[in-house]
Amino acid sequence: MQTVSEWYTTIVERAGLAEHSPVRGCMTIKPYGWALWENIQRPLDEAFKATGHQNAYFPIFIPLSFLAREAQHVEGFAQECAVVTHYRIKTDTATRSVSPDPEASLEEPLVVRPTSETIIWHSFKDWIHSYRDLPLLINQWANVVRWEKRPRLFLRTAEFLWQEGHTAHATAEEALQEARMILDLYASFVQEYLAIPVIKGVKTPNERFAGAVETFTIETLLIDGKALQAGTSHFLGQNFARAFDVKFLNAQNELEYVWATSWGVSTRLIGAVILSHGDEKGLILPPRIAPIQVVVIPIWRKEEEQAAVTQKAREVTEQLKAKGIRVKLDDDPQHRPGWKFNEWELRGVPLRFAVGPRDLEAGTVEVAWRHSAHKSTYPQSEAIARIEEWLMDIQKGLFDRAKARMESQIYRTDNYTEMREILEEKGGFIFAHWDGTTETELAIKEETGATIRCIPLEMPSEEGRCIYTGRPSSQRVLFAKAY
Amino acid sequence: MQTVSEWYTTIVERAGLAEHSPVRGCMTIKPYGWALWENIQRPLDEAFKATGHQNAYFPIFIPLSFLAREAQHVEGFAQECAVVTHYRIKTDTATRSVSPDPEASLEEPLVVRPTSETIIWHSFKDWIHSYRDLPLLINQWANVVRWEKRPRLFLRTAEFLWQEGHTAHATAEEALQEARMILDLYASFVQEYLAIPVIKGVKTPNERFAGAVETFTIETLLIDGKALQAGTSHFLGQNFARAFDVKFLNAQNELEYVWATSWGVSTRLIGAVILSHGDEKGLILPPRIAPIQVVVIPIWRKEEEQAAVTQKAREVTEQLKAKGIRVKLDDDPQHRPGWKFNEWELRGVPLRFAVGPRDLEAGTVEVAWRHSAHKSTYPQSEAIARIEEWLMDIQKGLFDRAKARMESQIYRTDNYTEMREILEEKGGFIFAHWDGTTETELAIKEETGATIRCIPLEMPSEEGRCIYTGRPSSQRVLFAKAY
Repeated sequence: MQTVSEWYTTIVERAGLAEHSPVRGCMTIKPYGWALWENIQRPLDEAFKATGHQNAYFPIFIPLSFLAREAQHVEGFAQECAVVTHYRIKTDTATRSVSPDPEASLEEPLVVRPTSETIIWHSFKDWIHSYRDLPLLINQWANVVRWEKRPRLFLRTAEFLWQEGHTAHATAEEALQEARMILDLYASFVQEYLAIPVIKGVKTPNERFAGAVETFTIETLLIDGKALQAGTSHFLGQNFARAFDVKFLNAQNELEYVWATSWGVSTRLIGAVILSHGDEKGLILPPRIAPIQVVVIPIWRKEEEQAAVTQKAREVTEQLKAKGIRVKLDDDPQHRPGWKFNEWELRGVPLRFAVGPRDLEAGTVEVAWRHSAHKSTYPQSEAIARIEEWLMDIQKGLFDRAKARMESQIYRTDNYTEMREILEEKGGFIFAHWDGTTETELAIKEETGATIRCIPLEMPSEEGRCIYTGRPSSQRVLFAKAY
Repeated sequence: MQTVSEWYTTIVERAGLAEHSPVRGCMTIKPYGWALWENIQRPLDEAFKATGHQNAYFPIFIPLSFLAREAQHVEGFAQECAVVTHYRIKTDTATRSVSPDPEASLEEPLVVRPTSETIIWHSFKDWIHSYRDLPLLINQWANVVRWEKRPRLFLRTAEFLWQEGHTAHATAEEALQEARMILDLYASFVQEYLAIPVIKGVKTPNERFAGAVETFTIETLLIDGKALQAGTSHFLGQNFARAFDVKFLNAQNELEYVWATSWGVSTRLIGAVILSHGDEKGLILPPRIAPIQVVVIPIWRKEEEQAAVTQKAREVTEQLKAKGIRVKLDDDPQHRPGWKFNEWELRGVPLRFAVGPRDLEAGTVEVAWRHSAHKSTYPQSEAIARIEEWLMDIQKGLFDRAKARMESQIYRTDNYTEMREILEEKGGFIFAHWDGTTETELAIKEETGATIRCIPLEMPSEEGRCIYTGRPSSQRVLFAKAY
């Protein structure tokens, strides 16, 4: 039997989303995968702009010494940095071999950004002088590199694409509010566009972003019962302002360090979509982000039917296009309809319209739903009229289904042996009491492989005893094995 | 007196477009500069898609050995490659100093892509099998790195942003046609959106892209009389297909090497805009790409006027917004109107609407044109009604002005001494005969600093004698000193 992991890699490659590249840990995002990323970027970018953020772009290279300025930050990223040491290569014309030119080594090596706090806060020092320059709300769409030991397409790659927001504020309250606002924005986006349910929470100190005072996160659970961190938003306190000496004159004319946030989501979201909705036939894409929302396939057996059926399929395609639907007419004569049905199911297209000789006479189309495998014939005019309604229903249906699935995989227990059994046999989220110490967290991780995904924000406090040590606890936290 | 070069750097920084970064040769693109880049990206991306291209994304790292596969290609880029040699850094906790970890050096160093032909053609080998897979029309939006000895913001930076198209075709004719189609697309875009006139041509062998059979280019002339290559489109023949062994089965079932093109434009276009239209007051931005097309400024002296005037300015702003105009209301009470006028002129906003107490009574606004310094008062309703017409007129006016300027800087000469004088004193384009040899081209470059920008495509052939050697020539070519 195929493992979920094998299924995942096969689907990602066969559906034309991405493939492994010759550079270890890096991926090539293929056109269909890129179209999906564009459909994720666009609404996010609009949401950032609507909440007052501006895009900018900072250099890909970070001087080694910058990273070192914030002690925890360098600690967190040192193990996974790509380092540029030379600025020229030398070719040996005899052997045609190439190597870094030893005479062109950099005085100070450069790191390919694993994240941009340091280089950005270096700039912010020049950009911020008084409270009138605040808040400063910046976002960047960029590639970043974190060397990965066990890469997986989209979920964990050495190079990945993301947006990183970096904001500066006059007060701690305002910065915290920003971090929370972005968390909500991420949660809404992931739920409404990707149809993926999430749990909002705070990371434990041990799982915090390197350099943050508080890390907020949205966590979801994938079909294999493993958790995935879908996005994080950090309250950085004054850590980076101190490291880069960024002060502002407040309204009382006093110098203060600036307060900060940073936050990001990445191409990893595509992995989340695949592992939230997919099935044995392949991808299932939520209509709001599907590069193709409807595929139209003409079906004919006899040569003499081809022209008329294709003509009708083209007409249906144009009618859908006119309604702003992302539609693809697949009239490729090289492949038979059955092959096409499988292909577009594999690629997760939400709806399929098939037009055959009988539909020609009856003025109908056969509509097939990818996510439910439901199939029905409708008058052409009704199918066109109802298309938005159907797509909205699919979007909602996918979310409801993923939510029901996730909820069925959430367990509450006060018994450590039971917790281990659940983790071993089923995976899933486990709500359990924890004594609040890193020691306990690490011991549980060591013994079970599960980490604390978050301390949920929307959970009532509840007195209890730590599932591991029996010490008092005031709230359940969320344990899971994670990607 | 300020040189054009000093003026340029000052304007780029003061207008908030970009600034130098602590990493030598790299720049930070600030929000206003990024907004300009987004307005360049959007229509280009649409034009690529409308002509059948699909976006994808390939890794930023290229194994050193890949570069070496195409002999001329590595020759062309070896001198300017950033090389990654380590994948981890080591922190010395005592001194808090960091350095590449000697125990984490890569077996094969990686180059940060200076361009992506090699990594892409490596993928194309898997993507292309038969003529049915062709043409393959791919574009990528990405950052690339070419180490620069004399960096200039936008015009020449170590890291820059661009799009790079890479296409594969079954025949040489089709690939050539693609390269020419993209050249035309670039020329139209630069002329219609950036209001910059260009001359289309072919590069001499010496100026060709490393690995190309033919390089097509659009060249323009900036206000200082220097030429700028604004975009290039390469016919790569079968060079990369051979280097990466990419063959396809043709319709006759024979294996053939694939034919290729590649093409790109970059953030350098922003430099071209600044140096085509700017004046002593600062930027002048063409309306089609201006992040802000109209700035609305309320003017009041007495406290009691403020509310009513600001209210009217807001109303005008909303009316413009409703027409889809990119408009900014500057009602910041911190600055006086005069300061604002200067600031928005510096930033190149095409139109300024000022609303004062008198306009309130008369129902008028004062409209000021940035590029012509023309100023007139109009009834508010007329100003709103005519806004699109005015913006179109400005767009056209800027192009016509830049074209007239460029034409005034084009010289024809058959006298080498005169050519040297023109280059020395005025700069500009010089149409002169050339004997077609690289020796002559290099000798002229050595003596005058001018290169052959291109062999124009739309020039009648004309018998003559080489301006340098007196040998026969069949066409004039375009000489200039260039960025």
